[in-house]
Amino acid sequence: MSSTFGNNIRLSVFGESHSAAVGMTLDGIPAGECIDLDELQKFMDRRAPGRSSRTTARREDDVPEFLSGIMIGADGDASSGRFGVTEGTPITAVIRNRDTRSQDYDLMKCVPRPGHADYPAHVKYGGNEDFRGGGHFSGRLTAPICIAGGIILQILKRRGITVEAKIAEIHGVEIKDEASYQLAMAEIDKAAAEGDSVGGVVSCEIKGLEAGIGEPMFGGVENVISQALFAIPAVKGIEFGRGFDAARIKGSENNDSFVTSGEDGRIVTESNNHGGILGGLTSGMPVTFRAAFKPTPSIAKPQRSVNYETGEETELVIKGRHDPCVVVRAVPVVEAAAAIAVYDLLQE
Amino acid sequence: MSSTFGNNIRLSVFGESHSAAVGMTLDGIPAGECIDLDELQKFMDRRAPGRSSRTTARREDDVPEFLSGIMIGADGDASSGRFGVTEGTPITAVIRNRDTRSQDYDLMKCVPRPGHADYPAHVKYGGNEDFRGGGHFSGRLTAPICIAGGIILQILKRRGITVEAKIAEIHGVEIKDEASYQLAMAEIDKAAAEGDSVGGVVSCEIKGLEAGIGEPMFGGVENVISQALFAIPAVKGIEFGRGFDAARIKGSENNDSFVTSGEDGRIVTESNNHGGILGGLTSGMPVTFRAAFKPTPSIAKPQRSVNYETGEETELVIKGRHDPCVVVRAVPVVEAAAAIAVYDLLQE
Amino acid sequence: MSSTFGNNIRLSVFGESHSAAVGMTLDGIPAGECIDLDELQKFMDRRAPGRSSRTTARREDDVPEFLSGIMIGADGDASSGRFGVTEGTPITAVIRNRDTRSQDYDLMKCVPRPGHADYPAHVKYGGNEDFRGGGHFSGRLTAPICIAGGIILQILKRRGITVEAKIAEIHGVEIKDEASYQLAMAEIDKAAAEGDSVGGVVSCEIKGLEAGIGEPMFGGVENVISQALFAIPAVKGIEFGRGFDAARIKGSENNDSFVTSGEDGRIVTESNNHGGILGGLTSGMPVTFRAAFKPTPSIAKPQRSVNYETGEETELVIKGRHDPCVVVRAVPVVEAAAAIAVYDLLQE
Amino acid sequence: MSSTFGNNIRLSVFGESHSAAVGMTLDGIPAGECIDLDELQKFMDRRAPGRSSRTTARREDDVPEFLSGIMIGADGDASSGRFGVTEGTPITAVIRNRDTRSQDYDLMKCVPRPGHADYPAHVKYGGNEDFRGGGHFSGRLTAPICIAGGIILQILKRRGITVEAKIAEIHGVEIKDEASYQLAMAEIDKAAAEGDSVGGVVSCEIKGLEAGIGEPMFGGVENVISQALFAIPAVKGIEFGRGFDAARIKGSENNDSFVTSGEDGRIVTESNNHGGILGGLTSGMPVTFRAAFKPTPSIAKPQRSVNYETGEETELVIKGRHDPCVVVRAVPVVEAAAAIAVYDLLQE
Repeated sequence: MSSTFGNNIRLSVFGESHSAAVGMTLDGIPAGECIDLDELQKFMDRRAPGRSSRTTARREDDVPEFLSGIMIGADGDASSGRFGVTEGTPITAVIRNRDTRSQDYDLMKCVPRPGHADYPAHVKYGGNEDFRGGGHFSGRLTAPICIAGGIILQILKRRGITVEAKIAEIHGVEIKDEASYQLAMAEIDKAAAEGDSVGGVVSCEIKGLEAGIGEPMFGGVENVISQALFAIPAVKGIEFGRGFDAARIKGSENNDSFVTSGEDGRIVTESNNHGGILGGLTSGMPVTFRAAFKPTPSIAKPQRSVNYETGEETELVIKGRHDPCVVVRAVPVVEAAAAIAVYDLLQE
Repeated sequence: MSSTFGNNIRLSVFGESHSAAVGMTLDGIPAGECIDLDELQKFMDRRAPGRSSRTTARREDDVPEFLSGIMIGADGDASSGRFGVTEGTPITAVIRNRDTRSQDYDLMKCVPRPGHADYPAHVKYGGNEDFRGGGHFSGRLTAPICIAGGIILQILKRRGITVEAKIAEIHGVEIKDEASYQLAMAEIDKAAAEGDSVGGVVSCEIKGLEAGIGEPMFGGVENVISQALFAIPAVKGIEFGRGFDAARIKGSENNDSFVTSGEDGRIVTESNNHGGILGGLTSGMPVTFRAAFKPTPSIAKPQRSVNYETGEETELVIKGRHDPCVVVRAVPVVEAAAAIAVYDLLQE
Repeated sequence: MSSTFGNNIRLSVFGESHSAAVGMTLDGIPAGECIDLDELQKFMDRRAPGRSSRTTARREDDVPEFLSGIMIGADGDASSGRFGVTEGTPITAVIRNRDTRSQDYDLMKCVPRPGHADYPAHVKYGGNEDFRGGGHFSGRLTAPICIAGGIILQILKRRGITVEAKIAEIHGVEIKDEASYQLAMAEIDKAAAEGDSVGGVVSCEIKGLEAGIGEPMFGGVENVISQALFAIPAVKGIEFGRGFDAARIKGSENNDSFVTSGEDGRIVTESNNHGGILGGLTSGMPVTFRAAFKPTPSIAKPQRSVNYETGEETELVIKGRHDPCVVVRAVPVVEAAAAIAVYDLLQE
Repeated sequence: MSSTFGNNIRLSVFGESHSAAVGMTLDGIPAGECIDLDELQKFMDRRAPGRSSRTTARREDDVPEFLSGIMIGADGDASSGRFGVTEGTPITAVIRNRDTRSQDYDLMKCVPRPGHADYPAHVKYGGNEDFRGGGHFSGRLTAPICIAGGIILQILKRRGITVEAKIAEIHGVEIKDEASYQLAMAEIDKAAAEGDSVGGVVSCEIKGLEAGIGEPMFGGVENVISQALFAIPAVKGIEFGRGFDAARIKGSENNDSFVTSGEDGRIVTESNNHGGILGGLTSGMPVTFRAAFKPTPSIAKPQRSVNYETGEETELVIKGRHDPCVVVRAVPVVEAAAAIAVYDLLQE
């Protein structure tokens, strides 16, 4: 029951890195929503591999084929794009896996890669797991998350809700401006050259949510967003608003005073240390969070591991094709996961 | 549907700070588990208010009354304690609210307290919420979480699984030894004297989990623990293993090498940057996480807020009785929430 | 996870026949709903035991105590009744068990009663089940269902939706008029005099539902109502609209023609063989169903059973106090269960 | 959230009669289960259309393509068949829709077919539904149910559990022997010749379930099986054991005495009026139920309906290709749905 998400919508994600296809079924989207398929593709492309020297060389087109739940059409004239109208029934889309080089993974059948799910998956599934490319645990499974999230982002946008993520840090370099961005990219290039990898932090801001969304206790905005976010491989931490930093200041500093908005007189807070969430409910201020990504576990450097069959310690050199830093491609995935979570909360 | 938790067990938490009672129903515990009620009470007492100068002066006995699901008995001789045997059916326990001074909250009917759920709850429930003491959003609701968690901790312990939390930081003071502990407590006392409050970080370690527990994607160990943890008021961030720090080191540093255990030859990792979780699944290493608590929002210092009815900005002075730092009492709550999450994962 | 119901609301039922209390938590009811507590009590009283010679002599007042989620008030003058306003948070109510004669059940510890859950419960819970009076499987657990259902019926009524059940058959005697009603009651009296019991059929009609409610496949109106109805002990069958009889006529007879309503021009069907449900969705016609109740399994006549401990076949004489026909008291329970199911469907 | 099923497994069904494909994702099947794909195909073929004069002329091969979750292999020599081994991750399979004659449905865009979901779906989805062939409400959606059920039936069989359904009645003709079977088939042929249709009853027996399976109240065996069964279009009633007939006999007749089995001394019941279920739990006796199917709503005879657009009453003649009696093809679907329900119950 793990690869499904949602209390009000139901997202079911399937596929493995080297299976026939990856895909998703999204149940609970109302009928009559018009989805711009070109815009969706552009969103998918932000995540797609093989677009720059800083991402894996594996090249996949990542064009979803819709099997159901959406009536595909096109505008009348050639210049305009393709769109789909939701039917209200489960939307299923698949992406065929094409550029799989399964032979790269032959060794891993017996030797788990450090930092990957190989070893616990081997124990859990008793050796029946599809180990090639991480199987169902592969970062490739974020593609279906982006299909669902891309659809939902369009629906949210029409309701005045935007979800925007960006890189906040790469390998400790905080990104504030173009110069720091170049420094951060240089960190990636350097790690790549060394056969190593780096991690980073993605920040995300969700605007346009009214106050009072979310549920108390286990159904709060933080609970639901974090449940969605940790589905992204490599995420190891999440903080809302001022987060861990809030633990280091006083109540009088951290509390956000309520004031009346000069604009329209409604109640807002002066600052936003609470990240738009109080008691699990939205306050009407932008929801803000940051997610920590560990460095890509696949590195070219030799690593130490243990052979399942022989029980002997061994040195492992990972071939395959990998991102020196997943953070770059993770930005749209964070938007997608956050959008899915927010949309689910909105349906309560 | 918010105040319920669990895919395999079902925990339902109810009550408000000033209602007749708070309580919980825990469905899914197998029959025949013997629960030491004295041990449970000791666990409850760690969270209970009114035990030291560093916690709220509100005094509640926090003795759960079991209404169903557990057959209460006692050992034959007077020296030994009370116990209960689970029947397999839903366990319901309630704690009566006694020491409520609802008049302290009269003002809050119209003026939301900064940092509390008052304002979004007011919007969400249209003024029908029980605003006294935070109602259902009160920290008092962590008492029923401790009933459920306290029961589950005993069951886990019998299966060789322990969950231990401790204070890691208070107001930026890292606790390493007795001296730093005294420094941290001094921070609390100082804040209390100033009519202010401080936050902190609680770390938690779960030992005894075999490899392969958890589910991929949305059902991973991080997803489920974080969903449970954010139910604790004041938690604003969570990180697993090396967490946010992992985002600042290289893959070659962060990856934990697999080696064979000298003890019994099974596969372990040399270090535990991954916090016992790879791909959402347990690796067999201790599961470790840290939760950031913001400073208690209730402070004696005057704060700025807005009156709902008049729409005017106003100064608010909170009377009531409050913890200058919730972190002290939060430690068993973190253990309870983590235990509930882990137990749910174990039932997959 | 069994004693909870709902995809959009969450009803959690707890208690045993002879535990301290039975009760329920109902999560998902919006804030601001005014509940007439006197009307609720009248509804509860329709189910309560000890009111006539045709129901069990066990006498319980069945007055729910509300622990949370509802603000109890009263109208200003003495003549008007008590009411409660929902707060939007989980509503918990309990009914204390008082008139328990547990000694009646001593024998049953070892000898399962035919037609009851004793034997499978014994196997399932390994002897830890509360066997007294059927424990959690007792018909007494329909009291909390009536609390939840009674609340929801009032909310539905305000939205123009009514749920009305009535006895359709007792021991094969179809109830059409007062004369047949008397015949049916005579059947009960005769069975009671013989130390035996009889069953019957309850029919139910839900009016006021618009077309298009429900979900395809597993979330259809029939699926959800039947899931709720089979929670009532003794229900062994359910049929919607013309039901089993529809299996014996032709399509041209069974299909209900669409026509325009003379009243307001909207689309209705001429007949209602489909019981207001097509493809799992409401058609706008009244939803109709019938539920079959087996005869009360507790009868005074000696029965054959087996002693768990000795493994020997034995004759069992049930003392206790029992209804010669549960159908009489089941009518409000059917309304309650149907109302809960319909309300859950309406929240999609 | 409607097209998903399961508390412990998660089945998600997608597709429309005339969309690119129908299919299913089945999450929660353990790794290492070997599935005989030839046997699965034979099971699928029992449901597939176009095999006899008594089923629709629409011809579909109904060969599932597995996209994920199952490693497809083949035995070493040519004589043996294809098989797949489950990987523990979500299993997705699709069946392409090929023989669609969408033009047959042009009229239905505006005129709902009596007895079908067309009208409520039109209201629910605001005209965005895929109306062709009933869209997501089509009987074609039972094909993915058969993929899931066919997989699960093989797993259950290896655990000694069998699920066998058969036709019990056609148009009131009870099937007891070959002669009555021929009479029943003659009823179908007669209805087909008249451009009409007939319904019937399917009985089902599940053997090999131990005592104590199922959960109290809403999670009982009857609740879960009926929730699954009503997903099959045309099912309008279900009864367990003696069902509606039990409502017409006395307790002393209906109660099944417990005796010790001559074979192995375990506790069994002499008769099985309770259909293997007491208090929602299995008793160890075979679980038996009967499901009532209404006659196929699509008939060649002219019917009365209303045009959505003009609001005028009209006569409708359904072209398309339809089964004169769905009961024949429904038998494996009943087995599939029951198997899915039972498997979900077994995972508690």
